[in-house]
Amino acid sequence: MSRQAAKRVLVVAGLGNGYGTGAAAARLFARNGYSVALVGRGAKVANELAETIITDGGHATPFTIPSYSHQDITQTWAAIHKHFPKPEYAVRAALFNVSGRVFKPFLDTTPEDVQECLQTGIAAAFAFSRGAILTFKENDNEQSSGKRGTLIFTGATAGIRGNTYTSAFAASKFGLRALSQSLAKEFGKEDIHVAHSIIDGAILLQPEPSSQGMVDKNLRPESIASSYLYLTNQDRSAMTWELDLRPSQEKW
Amino acid sequence: MSRQAAKRVLVVAGLGNGYGTGAAAARLFARNGYSVALVGRGAKVANELAETIITDGGHATPFTIPSYSHQDITQTWAAIHKHFPKPEYAVRAALFNVSGRVFKPFLDTTPEDVQECLQTGIAAAFAFSRGAILTFKENDNEQSSGKRGTLIFTGATAGIRGNTYTSAFAASKFGLRALSQSLAKEFGKEDIHVAHSIIDGAILLQPEPSSQGMVDKNLRPESIASSYLYLTNQDRSAMTWELDLRPSQEKW
Amino acid sequence: MSRQAAKRVLVVAGLGNGYGTGAAAARLFARNGYSVALVGRGAKVANELAETIITDGGHATPFTIPSYSHQDITQTWAAIHKHFPKPEYAVRAALFNVSGRVFKPFLDTTPEDVQECLQTGIAAAFAFSRGAILTFKENDNEQSSGKRGTLIFTGATAGIRGNTYTSAFAASKFGLRALSQSLAKEFGKEDIHVAHSIIDGAILLQPEPSSQGMVDKNLRPESIASSYLYLTNQDRSAMTWELDLRPSQEKW
Amino acid sequence: MSRQAAKRVLVVAGLGNGYGTGAAAARLFARNGYSVALVGRGAKVANELAETIITDGGHATPFTIPSYSHQDITQTWAAIHKHFPKPEYAVRAALFNVSGRVFKPFLDTTPEDVQECLQTGIAAAFAFSRGAILTFKENDNEQSSGKRGTLIFTGATAGIRGNTYTSAFAASKFGLRALSQSLAKEFGKEDIHVAHSIIDGAILLQPEPSSQGMVDKNLRPESIASSYLYLTNQDRSAMTWELDLRPSQEKW
Repeated sequence: MSRQAAKRVLVVAGLGNGYGTGAAAARLFARNGYSVALVGRGAKVANELAETIITDGGHATPFTIPSYSHQDITQTWAAIHKHFPKPEYAVRAALFNVSGRVFKPFLDTTPEDVQECLQTGIAAAFAFSRGAILTFKENDNEQSSGKRGTLIFTGATAGIRGNTYTSAFAASKFGLRALSQSLAKEFGKEDIHVAHSIIDGAILLQPEPSSQGMVDKNLRPESIASSYLYLTNQDRSAMTWELDLRPSQEKW
Repeated sequence: MSRQAAKRVLVVAGLGNGYGTGAAAARLFARNGYSVALVGRGAKVANELAETIITDGGHATPFTIPSYSHQDITQTWAAIHKHFPKPEYAVRAALFNVSGRVFKPFLDTTPEDVQECLQTGIAAAFAFSRGAILTFKENDNEQSSGKRGTLIFTGATAGIRGNTYTSAFAASKFGLRALSQSLAKEFGKEDIHVAHSIIDGAILLQPEPSSQGMVDKNLRPESIASSYLYLTNQDRSAMTWELDLRPSQEKW
Repeated sequence: MSRQAAKRVLVVAGLGNGYGTGAAAARLFARNGYSVALVGRGAKVANELAETIITDGGHATPFTIPSYSHQDITQTWAAIHKHFPKPEYAVRAALFNVSGRVFKPFLDTTPEDVQECLQTGIAAAFAFSRGAILTFKENDNEQSSGKRGTLIFTGATAGIRGNTYTSAFAASKFGLRALSQSLAKEFGKEDIHVAHSIIDGAILLQPEPSSQGMVDKNLRPESIASSYLYLTNQDRSAMTWELDLRPSQEKW
Repeated sequence: MSRQAAKRVLVVAGLGNGYGTGAAAARLFARNGYSVALVGRGAKVANELAETIITDGGHATPFTIPSYSHQDITQTWAAIHKHFPKPEYAVRAALFNVSGRVFKPFLDTTPEDVQECLQTGIAAAFAFSRGAILTFKENDNEQSSGKRGTLIFTGATAGIRGNTYTSAFAASKFGLRALSQSLAKEFGKEDIHVAHSIIDGAILLQPEPSSQGMVDKNLRPESIASSYLYLTNQDRSAMTWELDLRPSQEKW
């Protein structure tokens, strides 16, 4: 079996309630031929999402993670590699979709809140990126794109603008963006593509839109996922580090 | 005939030597079912590009423009509307791909250089945008995307960073970016999508890559065009104002 | 007379109604020993401001300018040099405080509005900068700062963010910022300091504050002028290209 | 004693080797009438710096801090308040000048490196800011500036641009910048001024310049300190959130 024929794997970390960005990306990539490693803290969400994808004819495996510590993330990467061994499989895409979410006035923000944001939002991203980069470096350059792999981070407006009530969240999202840019510059020349999205607006987190109006004012996770698939498909001659995504009705 | 069935038209302004971004976008959109209005100063390039597209089974019409003055651009829009009348056609996408290109030390930059950059790079963009926005406002919301139309500007790194030797060019590219952001904010709520690309690197301006090495270090116009098609296809729940594009080997 | 002892001259272009940023800078620099060349379109404002400064014991000369065209600006620089000849005088600071001010919905913005913003806001800045840079290059390095001269541009929030109703104004302010950054990079190594302020908020444009509340919510021109004096006094080991200025009560 | 007459205190966290930015700010503010609380991990540096300032006729007290943990910082603030009791003293300025400094290729960056940067560079800044904001909120508005206090963060180019070898450092500096912007927006309306500097270039870290050439190419800590004094003296009608500082010879 030639290495070119290795089955593509997407690793998604951060599944939320199973209806958000990570889950939508998992479903979309699965429909586009990727085997998906579903990494999340909640076993129920990961298992149900895997079942849904399998029912739809795709391939997905849940990897429940106890925490987003460096150690747990490293062990999860090891488990993923065991489950999707080379050369049959090649991890070609990785999505870090995890955040510590704290929205409080500064003086109500506790040291624990700060740690939650820093550990989940930045330190975990370092650990996850390490796994992704190490894996990508072992890949050959894909025929279609000329790339070895694509690592995507879900960012937010809070990653480019601090604001009232977002001190801790913004600190983590700025930090994540810094990491993504550093990695993009360091590993671009090795044909490893690192990208960062700026999600500007509320994401529609439910299985079915209740009304057209709601879709108008909220980001559809499926549309965010489409951008991630587009980024992954970009060839190495024109790679995007950063793009923003917002609903037409968003004031900005 | 229902309005939904109107044939999509892309208007491209700026065709360069026929092998760059504008031309690649024209070819790609034509292959994706768009009729293409080719706006350029050089009749030869526009005519040959139209022929190439038609030979490939697409639809394209050249509109040679004497200059990128407000008046000439306005007349060209009128000619385009006459050639692609409603309700049979609907202009759904417009690409402003024009620049005044001056790269000189500041003290060598003449008042004429400054005017060339301001008129071709900014004033022309205002005139072109006016035509696009007025047209889009008459469109219905497209079924697939929920949008009325997509207006894309080809920007550059010089649009976010002034530098030695780029004072005039950067001034025009910053100004273009300002226009694109103002329009994105003003017309987003009317489901008109305005986007701006940051092209970071040299574009491969020749019919066929002479070597793989050259492709590695330069932006392929076809890959830039793919990003424009992706932007045009984005639905109104998750629209991108800005994305950057650079080759994997670019130092940044 | 040693060149170090040359009398410092500030050239201010843009005097508004005589109570804004340019006028405040003129008064403050005059109180700090600068001879001030007052460049403005309105003879009455320039003359009255000069009288005020002279009455306060300072030195100021009005230079009424017919327009902010390249030619008129170039001739005004010549007149300034004639009035403040070397080696008795040395232009050490120059302030470009001119804007084309258009705030309209995009579709109400006329080609004339666009030209007003581009010519007054950008092309004039190129012409004014040329005069300043040429003058500074002939200066020696000042003992106190190690610099040859300081060129400051009054920018605005519209220089970093386009918005509804600001397409033309933002285009010009983005362009001005691009110029300032290009110049800062090109001439910094010659110890010429180029700076750009981002004025974020409404400026108090009247001789005396009518109430404390008004001062609280508006920028005092005197405070903006203080920042320009500070920038001018910075030494070449730590020069600022850009700073923002806003009232404490401004929402941003 | 009226509250206006309270003696001004500057709290500086981060003293480096005693010749950098924090130390220079301490000396400059002391010469301008501030009592200075010197917070640093090294007792020797803090003590010697205090002695130098006292010898020069100023007031300074060292507060050696075991670590930049939340608890240690909180206790240090308590010790400072005990040493400089109200209403005799009022902390009017606070400078956070601490960084975790890690410059390594990404794959050499350990989880400990990441934690060092996050804890020292961001979490410590949250704890320090909490102390400063709580103190400032108890201050009256100063007659001269209309402000209650000024909190300054020493940032870096790595706070706005990630790069090869700076993933961990940039993550912390981006996060610090996010905090500073969030605080500036949240507390500006209470006349509390929060500012962030972008230090772009190497700082001259030695007692006396060895040569003029070295000064030319490096940032003088005294010049950075001057910018901090200027920021502290800004009145509330025109406050700067962010400014950059670089030597004239720096390429950027």
